[in-house]
Amino acid sequence: GMGVEEDNSNSSNSIEEEIGKALEEAKELHEAAGSLMNKSATEEQSLRHRAQSLDSSLRRLRSLLPHLDPKLADKLEEDLHRARCLLTDGDAASFLPAKPHGRFLRMFLGPINVRASRKDIQLKVKEEYNSYRDRTALLFLLFPSTLLILRSWIWDGCLPAFPVQLYQAWLLLLYTGLALRENILRANGSDIRPWWIYHHYCALVMALVSLTWEIKGQPNCSQKQRGVQLFLQWAMMQGVAMLLQNRYQRQRLYTRIALGKAKRMDVVWGETAGVDGQLWVLCPILFILQGFEAYVGLLLLRTALDGVVSEWQVIFCGILLVLMAVGNFVNTVQTLMVKSRF
Amino acid sequence: GMGVEEDNSNSSNSIEEEIGKALEEAKELHEAAGSLMNKSATEEQSLRHRAQSLDSSLRRLRSLLPHLDPKLADKLEEDLHRARCLLTDGDAASFLPAKPHGRFLRMFLGPINVRASRKDIQLKVKEEYNSYRDRTALLFLLFPSTLLILRSWIWDGCLPAFPVQLYQAWLLLLYTGLALRENILRANGSDIRPWWIYHHYCALVMALVSLTWEIKGQPNCSQKQRGVQLFLQWAMMQGVAMLLQNRYQRQRLYTRIALGKAKRMDVVWGETAGVDGQLWVLCPILFILQGFEAYVGLLLLRTALDGVVSEWQVIFCGILLVLMAVGNFVNTVQTLMVKSRF
Ligand SMILES: CC(C)(COP(=O)(O)OP(=O)(O)OC[C@H]1O[C@@H](n2cnc3c(N)ncnc32)[C@H](O)[C@@H]1OP(=O)(O)O)[C@@H](O)C(=O)NCCC(=O)NCCS
Ligand SMILES: CC(C)(COP(=O)(O)OP(=O)(O)OC[C@H]1O[C@@H](n2cnc3c(N)ncnc32)[C@H](O)[C@@H]1OP(=O)(O)O)[C@@H](O)C(=O)NCCC(=O)NCCS
Repeated sequence: GMGVEEDNSNSSNSIEEEIGKALEEAKELHEAAGSLMNKSATEEQSLRHRAQSLDSSLRRLRSLLPHLDPKLADKLEEDLHRARCLLTDGDAASFLPAKPHGRFLRMFLGPINVRASRKDIQLKVKEEYNSYRDRTALLFLLFPSTLLILRSWIWDGCLPAFPVQLYQAWLLLLYTGLALRENILRANGSDIRPWWIYHHYCALVMALVSLTWEIKGQPNCSQKQRGVQLFLQWAMMQGVAMLLQNRYQRQRLYTRIALGKAKRMDVVWGETAGVDGQLWVLCPILFILQGFEAYVGLLLLRTALDGVVSEWQVIFCGILLVLMAVGNFVNTVQTLMVKSRF
Repeated sequence: GMGVEEDNSNSSNSIEEEIGKALEEAKELHEAAGSLMNKSATEEQSLRHRAQSLDSSLRRLRSLLPHLDPKLADKLEEDLHRARCLLTDGDAASFLPAKPHGRFLRMFLGPINVRASRKDIQLKVKEEYNSYRDRTALLFLLFPSTLLILRSWIWDGCLPAFPVQLYQAWLLLLYTGLALRENILRANGSDIRPWWIYHHYCALVMALVSLTWEIKGQPNCSQKQRGVQLFLQWAMMQGVAMLLQNRYQRQRLYTRIALGKAKRMDVVWGETAGVDGQLWVLCPILFILQGFEAYVGLLLLRTALDGVVSEWQVIFCGILLVLMAVGNFVNTVQTLMVKSRF
C-alpha cells in the first residue's frame, strides 16, 4: 500500500506542478500576444500615415505636370507612374485605406473585413474564383443542354416544371456566389468594372423572378414554353463563352504571375501580347452572344405582347435581358477601347 | 522674358526634385512594409506554436484529473479552467488555429478569412448581427400582418400572388444573410449551436420552394390558400418571438461586456442571473411557437393528403416545418439543461 500511495502522491505533485506551470504559461502567452498586437498596431498606424501622405503628394505632383515642358513632363510622368505602382501594387498597398465595401457585401456579411493583407492570399482568392467559374461554366453547358435533350427525346416536347425550377434555383445560388466573390475581389484591389457585378445582380433578380414563373404543361406546350426554351438555349451558349473567357483570363493571370507583376497596371506595354491576341477571337463570340441575349429578350417581349403568355414575369425578364445585353456590349467595347489606347 | 524663364526652370527643378524624393519615399515605404510584414509573420508564427502546444498540454492535463484525489482534482480543475479561459478568450485566442470554415461559407465566399483578429471588432460584428436581427424582426411582424390585413379588408379573402412572392423573396434574402452571418460569428469563436444554423438553411430552402408554389386564385380561394395563410400567421408569431429573443440576447451581451468578459464561459456562475430569469418567460413562448410550427406543418400535410392542394411543394414544406419544430424543441431543451447544470 505504502509504495503505491507514495507513488500516487508523487504523481499528483508533479501534475499539480505542471498545471501551475501551464497556468503561468497561459498568462505569459496572453501578455505576449497583447503586447505584440499593440506593437504591430502602432507600427501599422505609422505606415498607414506615410502611405496616405505619399498618396496625396503623388496626386498633387501629377496635377502639376501639365504646366511643365512636355519632354520633361514625359520623363517625370514615368517616374510618377513607377512610384504609384510601388505604392498600390507593392507591400505598402495593404496600408492604403481600403475601399469601403459595397452595400451588397454589407447586407449579406455585416461589417467584417474581407481584404486579405498578404499578396499571396489575394492571388489565391483570385485563382479560386477562376476555378469556381470553370466548374460553373461546365455545369452551365451541361444542365440546360441535358434539359433540352430530354425535352425532345423523352418528354415529348414538354418540359416538366421540377427540373426547370431546380435549374433556376441553381442559377440563383450561382449568381449569388459570383456576386459575393466579385465584390470580395474588388475589395482586394481588383479593377473589375462595376458593370460586371451589376450584371450578376440583374441575373440574380432574373433567376428569382423566373422561379415564380409558372411552367405551363399540355396542351399547346411548345408554344407556351417558347420563352423557357429560348432561355435554355441562351444559357448553353453562355456556357461556351464562359469557358473561353475563363481560359483567356486565367492565362492573363499566369502571365502576370510569371512576370512577377501582381497587377495589370505593370503589364500594359505589350507583355501580354500573346494573350491579348486571344481577345480578337473572344470578342466576336461575345458580341454574337450579346446579340442573341437581346434577341431572346425581344422574343420574350413579343410573346407577352402577342398574348401567348401574359404573365408579368415574361415582360420583366424580357426587359432585363435587353438591358443586360446593351450593358454588356457597351462595357466590352469600352474595355477594348481602353486596351487599344496602349 | 529672361526672368519668367528662369522662374519656370526653377520650379521645374523643384518639381523634378520632389518627384525624385517621392519615388525614393515609395521605395522606402515598400521595403518598410515588407519588413514589418515579415517580422510580424515570424513573431506570430512563434506565438502560434506556443498557443498550440499549451492547448495540447491543457488537454492532456485535463485527461489526467480523474485519476487524482477528488478534492485535489476540484482545485486543479479550477486552475485548468482559468488557464483555458485565458487561452481561448484572451488575446492569445487569435493565435489558436481557426475552425475551418463550413462548406456554406466556402461555397459563397471562397477561401477568404472572415475571422477578425481583434476582440473589439468581433464584438462589433456580434452587435451588428443583433441589430440586423432587430430590424428583420420588425419586418417579420409587419410584412405578413399587412398581407393578412389587406387580405381580409381589401382583397376579399384572396391573396394576390405578387405581394406574397415578394414576401417569399424577402425571406430568402433574409435567411441567406442570417446563415452567412451566423457562420461568420462561429468562425469568430461564437458557441452558437450548429442546429440554429441548420435551421436557417432549412428556412432558406423552404423560402426557395415556396417561391415555386403557385398561389391559386378564385374560385374557392380561401380553401386553396389555407396553407399560405397559416404560414403567414406563423411568420407573424415568429416576429414576436424574435423580438423577445433579441432583447434577451442583447442584454446578455451587455452584461458580459460590462463585466469585461468576452465569453459566456466566464459568466456561468450566476452573474447574469437577472437575464437568465428572462429565460423562464421566453422559453414558454418559444415552446408554444414551436408547437404552432409543427401544427402548421401537419395542417399542410393534411391539406395535401386530403387532395385539396396536391403540389409537391405543400408536402415538402409540411415535412420541413415539422422537422424544424422538433429540432428547435430538442435544442431549446438541451440548452436549458446545460444551463441548469451550473
Ligand atoms: C471583354 C473581356 C474579355 C475583357 O476582359 P479583361 O481583358 O480581363 O478586362 P480588363 O483588363 O478590363 O479587366 C479588369 C479586371 O476585371 C476583371 N474582369 C473583366 N471582365 C470581367 C467579367 N466579365 N467578369 C468578372 N471579372 C471580369 C478582370 O479579371 C480584371 O481583374 P483584375 O483587376 O483582378 O486582374 C471581359 O470583360 C468579358 O468577358 N466581357 C464580356 C462578358 C459578357 O458579355 N458576358 C455575357 C455574355 S452574354
Ligand atoms: C433558447 C435560447 C433563448 C437560448 O439562448 P442563449 O441563452 O443565448 O443560448 P446559449 O447560451 O446556448 O448561446 C450560445 C451562443 O449561441 C447563440 N445563440 C443561441 N441561440 C441562438 C439562435 N436561436 N440563433 C442564433 N444564435 C443563437 C448565443 O447568442 C450565443 O452566442 P455567443 O457564443 O456568440 O455568445 C435560444 O437558443 C433560442 O431562442 N432558441 C429558440 C429559437 C427558436 O425556436 N426559434 C424559432 C421559433 S419557431
